[in-house]
Amino acid sequence: MTGLSSESYKGARDWYPEDMRVRSYIFNMWRKVVKSYGYEQYDAPLLEPLEVYAAKSGQELVNDQTYQFTDRGDRRVAIRPEMTPSVSRMIAAHRQEIAYPARWFSIAQFMRYERPQRGREREFWQLNCDIFGVEGAMAEAEIISLGDKLLKSFGAKSDMYIIRINNRRIINFMMAHYLGLDAIQSQLMIKLFDRKNKIAPEAFRDQAIDIFGAENAKAGLQKIAHLLAAKSMGDLPEAIRDSDAVKEVQQLFTLLEKVGVTNAVFDITLMRGLDYYTGTVFEFFDMHPENRRSLFGGGRYDGLVGLFGAEPVSAVGFAPGLTTTELFLQSHNLLPKFVSTTDVYMIVLGNALTGALDVAEELRKEAINVEIDFTGRKIDKQLKTAIKKKIPYLLFIGEDEVRSEVYSLKRTETGEEKKISLERVVSTVKDRRHHVEIENDEEFDISDLKA
Amino acid sequence: MTGLSSESYKGARDWYPEDMRVRSYIFNMWRKVVKSYGYEQYDAPLLEPLEVYAAKSGQELVNDQTYQFTDRGDRRVAIRPEMTPSVSRMIAAHRQEIAYPARWFSIAQFMRYERPQRGREREFWQLNCDIFGVEGAMAEAEIISLGDKLLKSFGAKSDMYIIRINNRRIINFMMAHYLGLDAIQSQLMIKLFDRKNKIAPEAFRDQAIDIFGAENAKAGLQKIAHLLAAKSMGDLPEAIRDSDAVKEVQQLFTLLEKVGVTNAVFDITLMRGLDYYTGTVFEFFDMHPENRRSLFGGGRYDGLVGLFGAEPVSAVGFAPGLTTTELFLQSHNLLPKFVSTTDVYMIVLGNALTGALDVAEELRKEAINVEIDFTGRKIDKQLKTAIKKKIPYLLFIGEDEVRSEVYSLKRTETGEEKKISLERVVSTVKDRRHHVEIENDEEFDISDLKA
Repeated sequence: MTGLSSESYKGARDWYPEDMRVRSYIFNMWRKVVKSYGYEQYDAPLLEPLEVYAAKSGQELVNDQTYQFTDRGDRRVAIRPEMTPSVSRMIAAHRQEIAYPARWFSIAQFMRYERPQRGREREFWQLNCDIFGVEGAMAEAEIISLGDKLLKSFGAKSDMYIIRINNRRIINFMMAHYLGLDAIQSQLMIKLFDRKNKIAPEAFRDQAIDIFGAENAKAGLQKIAHLLAAKSMGDLPEAIRDSDAVKEVQQLFTLLEKVGVTNAVFDITLMRGLDYYTGTVFEFFDMHPENRRSLFGGGRYDGLVGLFGAEPVSAVGFAPGLTTTELFLQSHNLLPKFVSTTDVYMIVLGNALTGALDVAEELRKEAINVEIDFTGRKIDKQLKTAIKKKIPYLLFIGEDEVRSEVYSLKRTETGEEKKISLERVVSTVKDRRHHVEIENDEEFDISDLKA
Repeated sequence: MTGLSSESYKGARDWYPEDMRVRSYIFNMWRKVVKSYGYEQYDAPLLEPLEVYAAKSGQELVNDQTYQFTDRGDRRVAIRPEMTPSVSRMIAAHRQEIAYPARWFSIAQFMRYERPQRGREREFWQLNCDIFGVEGAMAEAEIISLGDKLLKSFGAKSDMYIIRINNRRIINFMMAHYLGLDAIQSQLMIKLFDRKNKIAPEAFRDQAIDIFGAENAKAGLQKIAHLLAAKSMGDLPEAIRDSDAVKEVQQLFTLLEKVGVTNAVFDITLMRGLDYYTGTVFEFFDMHPENRRSLFGGGRYDGLVGLFGAEPVSAVGFAPGLTTTELFLQSHNLLPKFVSTTDVYMIVLGNALTGALDVAEELRKEAINVEIDFTGRKIDKQLKTAIKKKIPYLLFIGEDEVRSEVYSLKRTETGEEKKISLERVVSTVKDRRHHVEIENDEEFDISDLKA
């Protein structure tokens, strides 16, 4: 028979152990930070009824980007393209039993049929982090400061990114009362603002004229120019500046100062594509000259839970992606060097297998990760394997070592070698781990496991 | 508009935080144990070309159970129903660069369209653990002892389960040379043996007669009776007992003794359904009277990597499932009691929000997970929330506490309350964690994060 292709599905990555080290590093940091704010992990199914997205996620996502199909039981389903509808459904299903404020997070994969490019894959991973049942702006302040903390936990500084903030109620007010657009025109204008940084100024202008219609175009364009010139909320046209929604945003900025977020700016052009947002929307944006891109965003979506036949529950959330986070860390040179999760590669000499198995068990009891090479190959081949795997220590076990209980431990990186007792092997390996831990400013965390 | 349904997709679970605690406990234990043997984590895409499964996974899986569809680019794909073909594809793709023995594991979800029942869901999670590039029986011995270690790490004892072992080469020899069956008859007989414990003895007998054909049935049934009566390899009919494959199995039993596995038995009736196995097959089986079921299984599949246009690479692996593991732990009463991953619920009194935010930051710097209630509700409502969430400590922060820097810390479970400094809050909370850690026999593990 002819061979099957060994390529992965287009737009999806194979995660080899060396790629997985980066992913685990990012996921672990995410978990650690959001748990420190009291968020608890949940997960939702891969598949949802298609109608869940049709309701509020926007036409482009549903019609062009979902992986949708009919299952063997004739249900029309989609592989989840995002988490927000699923988590809203889950909240709705147990609305009465849940203790509010509910702080929930998940780390999961999603699929969208888009053209794969740098920073965008068809299969992608996100942290989703949401707070349910809090109406005041403190919910937004916590979520935004959590996003800030996530980036800082990787070593980022405030000048590496900015946080853009807007509010859907300001946007709606602006569209209807300031620009004088009807519902359909407003939708089109929101999508146009959303694409503003991706298209040429002339294209923006031409499409704006189309939306206003010939007779209103001139006045409309002037108003837009006025809006775009506004550098702060104080520069906004008076009609907008005095709206309730603006006061809400001002309150949020006051709270952000209180929680130590210093790099947030108001941006009237920020829309965020998803239809379900009802209040604050925000976006973290990378300021690196070679990686200027949206890192992640979120906002308030008070109406979504209510769609699932329950009373509404207020909600604020955001969702950083793995790929954009990795690109951010790469651009700013914030990724550490990774080695294997295995501490010791055991090279077995001669007929010492039984002794080697016993020593490995002893080390494992001390929480040391040990791989045994029982291939019986020549030493240099065994050595090469350990180096290729980036395992920090080599331990040589032959019949002499088993008899004398003195073992040769070698640092793979430096070649430094010591003949020591098993006890000292344990302390040497653990000592290195401890240093790594300090360097990474990582703290002891048993929070996944408690009785 | 009418409400959307809040039910999850049929056969898939919503993982609420309290369910997720169990899942995280099991996943963390799995990760810890397999890493201690030097296995490194990988992952593969959710989707694979359908043909990947058509090749070697068996007709039932492909035709009746896969979630398959045509994507927007006209590719015929399936949501992965198992990991083995994907990981074999990945090994084939990087065959030259990989350092052998390669020890790999993944924890991932899969989908099969089956009738949901106790212990079986359409969306399910598995640990997959494989060793590539080792031909000798030591690979099987390590994989089986790893399965044994996994169960023991949860507190299981050897008498709670048995390990059944057989070998595909014995099976093939038995079918062709002892029972005298041709290729098609052999396939049917293997499937029949596979169902043996799920059907009545009469049904087994009738179907066996059908396979042998009337004239050979009597002699055939006698031979099967002889086989089924064999309690050990020594009882096997001489023709089988002297085959090479039996010697291989004997060698495996010797090695299993060496690695401390005491509850393995030879079982000539064990087949394992998947077509790709080429040598040893094994199965862990729960002996609890109310939960007698296969826990998980695996075996050697030396031919699969070679299907992806590469030279063959020998492979042994196994795949415990989350649901069967959970049922095993439940049946044997081995699941600990779980609390929240949040350590402290902060109850804010009066106008102390700013002070509370500062104290929370201090605690987080000490790696304590703190949730703040900034709803401004009455104290008893805030209390109730913390209890419902099973958060072990309550911390009360009012203006007095902020001024005096003495805080009220209360154990949620016992109601015990102390007025102490922030430093003592930290040590009290950490001390409890430490006890929990000892009780769980869980060791410090930074192995996901290294520089």
